[in-house]
This record gives sequence, C-alpha cells and structure tokens, in this order.
Amino acid sequence: MLALLLDGEPRLVADHPPPRREPGEALIGMRLAGVCDTDLQLARGYMGYRGVLGHEFVGTVLEADSARWRGRRVVADINAGCGECDDCRDRDGHHCARRSVLGILARDGALAEQLAMPERCLVEVPDSVPDEQAVFAEPLAAALHVLDELEDGRGPVVVLGDGKLGTLIALGLLGAGVEVAVVGHHQDKLELSARAGARTFLESGLGDQLGGAPMVVEATGSASGLERALSLVRPRGTVAVKTTVAGPVEVDLSPIVINELRLVGSRCGDMQRAIDLLAEGRVDPTPLIQARYPLLQADRALSHAGERGTLKVLVEGAG
Amino acid sequence: MLALLLDGEPRLVADHPPPRREPGEALIGMRLAGVCDTDLQLARGYMGYRGVLGHEFVGTVLEADSARWRGRRVVADINAGCGECDDCRDRDGHHCARRSVLGILARDGALAEQLAMPERCLVEVPDSVPDEQAVFAEPLAAALHVLDELEDGRGPVVVLGDGKLGTLIALGLLGAGVEVAVVGHHQDKLELSARAGARTFLESGLGDQLGGAPMVVEATGSASGLERALSLVRPRGTVAVKTTVAGPVEVDLSPIVINELRLVGSRCGDMQRAIDLLAEGRVDPTPLIQARYPLLQADRALSHAGERGTLKVLVEGAG
Repeated sequence: MLALLLDGEPRLVADHPPPRREPGEALIGMRLAGVCDTDLQLARGYMGYRGVLGHEFVGTVLEADSARWRGRRVVADINAGCGECDDCRDRDGHHCARRSVLGILARDGALAEQLAMPERCLVEVPDSVPDEQAVFAEPLAAALHVLDELEDGRGPVVVLGDGKLGTLIALGLLGAGVEVAVVGHHQDKLELSARAGARTFLESGLGDQLGGAPMVVEATGSASGLERALSLVRPRGTVAVKTTVAGPVEVDLSPIVINELRLVGSRCGDMQRAIDLLAEGRVDPTPLIQARYPLLQADRALSHAGERGTLKVLVEGAG
Repeated sequence: MLALLLDGEPRLVADHPPPRREPGEALIGMRLAGVCDTDLQLARGYMGYRGVLGHEFVGTVLEADSARWRGRRVVADINAGCGECDDCRDRDGHHCARRSVLGILARDGALAEQLAMPERCLVEVPDSVPDEQAVFAEPLAAALHVLDELEDGRGPVVVLGDGKLGTLIALGLLGAGVEVAVVGHHQDKLELSARAGARTFLESGLGDQLGGAPMVVEATGSASGLERALSLVRPRGTVAVKTTVAGPVEVDLSPIVINELRLVGSRCGDMQRAIDLLAEGRVDPTPLIQARYPLLQADRALSHAGERGTLKVLVEGAG
C-alpha cells in the first residue's frame, strides 16, 4: 500500500505491506490525517522511530472482531497498551511499559492507506462532526488535558505561542469555557484565537500586562519558552509544558523553588472529551488548516509542514 | 551588637546597630542559630543581599507589644509579609510582594545578638523541645512541605541527597509516618537516615532498585540532581525540587512531557507543623549537628559550614 515511511529519510513508498490486524484490533482505512511537529522531530531522528509516520487521523473501520465497529467512522487514542498491566487496567494505558504508539513507537502510523489499532482505543465520530474537524481530535485531546490542572476550572490561562499547537490549545480552552489570553509573535495567527474570544498580545508589546497569571501553557515549540513561562506565572502558579525539546536546554529553574511553582508535563489526552467538544460545536479548529495534499503527495505535505510558521497540513486518504 | 554582617564579604562586626522594633514586632534575643546553604549562597552574592546573615534560630522574646509573647522561647516564620495584601490575608504571606525575609531580603538576620520579627510570625516552643531541636524548625518546616504534594500521604518517597537537607527531609517524612528511601554518596551520612527507619542506597550501587517511585525529592544541592530525579520518578509522578541553583543549568526536560511528570518547587513551610512534630518526639534532628561555635566565632562557623560535606553548624547566642 501507499505509505509515508520513515527509514532513515522519510519517503513515499507504494509497496509497504498493509498492517496485520491482531486479535482485538480494527483495520482502519485512512480518510484524513494531520501532520504534527512530532512527525517532523521523528523525521529528524527523535526516538529512533522507523516505520510509517502519522498519528492524527480520522478513518473508517474496514475489519474488526466486533460488529459494533465495522463501517464506523473513528478516531483513536494513539497509545496501544498491553491491556493487562496496572497502567492499562487502572488508568488509560498511556504509560504502559509494553505499549506501542501509533506512528511513534513500534506501530505503523496513519500516513498510509490503512492502519490498525486495538478496538478499545477507538472513539466513534458522530455524523455531525466532519472529517476536517475530527482529524484534530488527537491534538485537541492533548490540548484539553490542561483543564485537569486548572484548580478552579475557569482561568484565566495564558497560552504562550500562536502556532498550531498554541492556537489549538486556546480554541479548546475557550470552547471549554475558560478565559484565555494568547501571547505570540504573529498578528495574523493571534487573530485566529481573538476571533474565538481570546485576549491576544504581541510578545513585543506585552510589558507586564499579564504578570501573575495563575496558569501559563508553554506551547512555543522553542527551547526558550519555558523560561518565559516561568517569568509570567504568579507565585504558586502552574506552568503546563507542552513543547517537547529533545536534548538538554539551558534554563534558570530557580523561580520554581523561589516562587514555589508547579510544572506539569502533558502529552496525550482523552479522545472522547475532544470528540464531545467538537460534537457540541464548541470548538472549530478548521481555521487552522493551511493546506491539504493527497496521500500520493504525503512527502510534499511533510515538507510543507516543516516550513517555519506553517499551520496544520492535512493528507487525504480514501478510507 | 555582635553580628555576622554581609557587606561584600561576610565579616563579624561588634558595633552593628541593634534592630529597631517596629509596631507589631517582637525584639528577640538569639539563643541558638543554624547556618544554611542559603547563607553560603548569599555570601557568594546570590540575591544581592546586604545585612546580617542567618534565618534559622530559636530565641527569647525580649520586647513585644503583646504581653503574651514577652519572655517566651520562640521560632519564627522567616517571611514578614505586609499583612494587608491578598497573599498575607488569604494565605501565609510567603509570596507577599512587599515582604521582607529574615537574613535574606531587607531584614537583618539571626546570626547576631538580637533580631526583630512581626509577632504574627512567631511560634512558641514548648518546654519539651530543647534549643538544639527547635533551631531546626525552619528547615524542618520546609522539609515537611513535601507532605502537601504526596497524594496518598504515605509514599514511598525517594530522597535524593544525603547532605543536611536530604537527611532532614528524610527524618521529617519518617516522623510523619511516610515510607522513605534515601539515595546518596556517603555511607556514613546515609546511616543517619537508616537509623531513623529509612531504606538507604549508595548511588553507585543503586541500579534500577528504585525505578518508578511515585515521588522523588531532589535535595542533592547539585545542578545535576534534577536530571537524576527525573530518571527515578515513575510516569505521572512528582519531583519536589528543593535545591536552588542560582543561574541557568543544562537539563533535558523532555521526560516531563513524555512521562507527564509534575515538578513542584517548595521553599518555606509551616513552622507550627515542624514544632508539633518535634514536640511529639517524632523527629530528632540533633544527630545532624556537626559543630557549635559561639557568636564571637560566627565567621568561623560560616567557613566550617562551607566545607564540602559538612552537616549542620550551629552558632550560640546569649538570648
């Protein structure tokens, strides 16, 4: 099948073997997939992953053990845990030591004609949610994870970064009824959050207008973002760290102790919560879409996504 | 009066003016004071502090507005807030923007014949707690602050570092009924925690015996301690950061996001809780005492405390 394969360099191949569906798994035809910064990092060697790229998708179930799933339009939690350990039984399996992760760890990803995921990872997409929204479910779920760290559930939350990650977090939090301020470098991108109801600020003109926020979400994608976040949060406040920077960074961490801050890392979220928010019409991520490519040009989609300042690039399947 | 003054270099002076007692404050005669690593950092220029050093003490109230305090043996919360702002009214004033901090920020410290603190900062020391224990109340309170981050209140907690900070944290947590493992480089120092009931491990022989702890307290006093702590905590676990490293450090923070960790900084704690634990006989920090000097040799006490591997050095007053 057609797939964007990472094996040294990422390249489009026409003869990749279709995924083998294990017992309990669903074979899924890819309808629409998204390119994420993590894909770009994997392509540069992060985590040493080899296999088909892609973990943001919406697809159609082609084969499954359970009749309940066949023919359904689905998204999926990308973490496929063993199903048996404490983490899988008591929690969500996101930290199962034997897990595979779609397009990231030991499991071929979604930038292909077909993919396979355990049925227990699937979340059905209601008819009211179009593919163009459902494809954002995975990053939106991750964005909404921030809500679990908000003490009063209302904010205000400062989102640092106006790229696709920061903007999606802003849209998600606004959809959940949280007061949001976004700080970025690009007036045009800030506009996307402003239209959804956020207060927005250019970093260059921020001054101390936002000093002392109870929560700051670091979504700059840059190594220097954390230090900036630490400077904006109030004493005893929370910094949610969204940027993954591979390798060591130089950072002054003394404010963590002096101001008794809380740093919280968060990666994946609850897919059902994301789909619910989309189904309720409370978030519309489609203004983030910058380009769409057919799967036959998935390599060009990846290059495009890697250009500085690009928002969401989608890849179309036939699923 | 006699005082250990930091004014460029720390030096013992005989003619420092006694503190002026403001309304609502108590004038306190110093009985016994401790030297802390923070004092050594301040002496090296940290925070640009100038004034009398010292913030760990037990003393006798010489003068106060309220008769309730006169003649009492006391310790004190070192943060003297304005008493009027939200942080002072609703919380403990530890982050009051107008606060002074004993021997650290805009308030002469305890390595002197006398000091002054607001009456609302004072905590009375019961007769059953000797000076040699009460002088540990401030660092013990800071150590016990870790308890507020322990989800189930039981542990196990891994304490990284067998110096005076790590050992005091271990003793405090053990006293509070928490299961503790201490990791350090010195068999003789680990012995202090082992005698109080901790499991202890030499860092060199640790291997993966402690992998996956729900909470790790970073108390190494070293810039590399945080990365080590991040490697020992389990996914979704908590790292309590106790070491203050002035200036930037190089650290790989990607485990925070990947393993969805929580980093919590903590500085000062609840003095009453520390005194209560001492009064109940559940913690005995006196094995940490390495040397005692009269106030007339406070400069030598500071030098001694600065020698690598030194445990607690005390300074005796006449209060």
